[in-house]
Amino acid sequence: MPLKLYYAPGACSFVPHTLLEATGEPYEPLMVKIHKGEHYEPPYKSVNPRSQVPTLVDEGEVITQIVAIVNYLAERFPRMGFLPAEPLAKARVLETLAWMNNTVHPTFTHIFMPQKFADNPAVHGDLKRYNTQLYRGMLGELQALAAAAQARGWAWLGGERFGPLDAYALTLLRWGSIAGIDPAGFPVLWAAVQRTAALPHVARVIERERLQLNLYRPG
Amino acid sequence: MPLKLYYAPGACSFVPHTLLEATGEPYEPLMVKIHKGEHYEPPYKSVNPRSQVPTLVDEGEVITQIVAIVNYLAERFPRMGFLPAEPLAKARVLETLAWMNNTVHPTFTHIFMPQKFADNPAVHGDLKRYNTQLYRGMLGELQALAAAAQARGWAWLGGERFGPLDAYALTLLRWGSIAGIDPAGFPVLWAAVQRTAALPHVARVIERERLQLNLYRPG
Ligand SMILES: N[C@@H](CCC(=O)N[C@@H](CS)C(=O)NCC(=O)O)C(=O)O
Ligand SMILES: N[C@@H](CCC(=O)N[C@@H](CS)C(=O)NCC(=O)O)C(=O)O
Repeated sequence: MPLKLYYAPGACSFVPHTLLEATGEPYEPLMVKIHKGEHYEPPYKSVNPRSQVPTLVDEGEVITQIVAIVNYLAERFPRMGFLPAEPLAKARVLETLAWMNNTVHPTFTHIFMPQKFADNPAVHGDLKRYNTQLYRGMLGELQALAAAAQARGWAWLGGERFGPLDAYALTLLRWGSIAGIDPAGFPVLWAAVQRTAALPHVARVIERERLQLNLYRPG
Repeated sequence: MPLKLYYAPGACSFVPHTLLEATGEPYEPLMVKIHKGEHYEPPYKSVNPRSQVPTLVDEGEVITQIVAIVNYLAERFPRMGFLPAEPLAKARVLETLAWMNNTVHPTFTHIFMPQKFADNPAVHGDLKRYNTQLYRGMLGELQALAAAAQARGWAWLGGERFGPLDAYALTLLRWGSIAGIDPAGFPVLWAAVQRTAALPHVARVIERERLQLNLYRPG
């Protein structure tokens, strides 16, 4: 039975979606319409009770959480080199993946869905404003990582090969553009993201999810 | 050169601290006085520019982020079984570790350090109140995981052996008690945490960090 991936267009599920597409193996991408609240309805809740994407299903076994899914795909498709084999190099990729996942990503959630952190709508404006400022700083950190990778002669954020950091960076910079942050303000990162988007397997996922890479509108 | 671990008493660095202590190998625990702001001063910032604990140093190589440190220690001390070897079992532990780290832990941060998410002090009360409510629900989820592990006949949260989930669960329930949540309200989880605290290597870390397990004060 092929692997199944529950994803939502433009969501963080883009990360495992592009990894699966990179393998060239058959898999079943299953769209969850988050904007219609499908993730809160019984069919999806019976798969993932936390009502989030991504969810990977392998022979009926459900795996959630990007960090766990990425690690699982790396072990299932070792030829893809999604994570380095050498322990220290692997730790370097995992620390950036964890930081994207536990810090940068939730900072965007404060901007996009402040109701997740405060039920009083009166405070949402404050959360949006302050976290947009934090998010800008984090994109700066991400650009510094991209520059450091290039200085080492690496083609991709985690080393010689495309991996989860490249897909996550694309997602995070794209989200920034939704939050009114111009990607052109981070030229090294923006160039890296555009190179990622041009990879054939990434381009196919962008087409399936119908994504625009840059949603920034000046003024 | 022995491994070095930068930790702060009672912080999430308790997780790698107890793993290192479990190995029985020599290592250097280095206390960072967060309450005195030492993590923002040049000596520590030169080690970890993000000014957080834990930081692991192996032969001059710096590794941050609990998820990366746990994985690194699991690979460096395979005989300890800190993570299961079998891919699916490992994914199960990593998904709970990631959830503790990217969801439960930051929810407590909203209660303990709301200034990390909003610079306007007027909204801090709202953040504290709502996130305390969320945190209570998450401790309920954690207790369900503890009950499920026991139903499988496992002695510990991740399986047959002590691991990162047990240390993190202790930390998160202890933090709950600081936030005014009575651990006795989660009897299965509280019993599991007390068993963890009684392990000799965990007891030694609790003593070194001078921790009280339950800081809940009724009324
Ligand atoms: N910690 C989760 C985060 C997953 C997450 O934030 N998913 C978002 C999309 S990016 C989601 O499903 N949001 C729907 C909602 O929460 O309403 C992971 O790493 O997989
Ligand atoms: N994402 C980090 C979180 C580390 C973290 O939150 N550390 C806290 C202690 S629990 C800290 O250093 N806080 C000091 C501060 O931020 O001021 C990890 O997984 O290691």
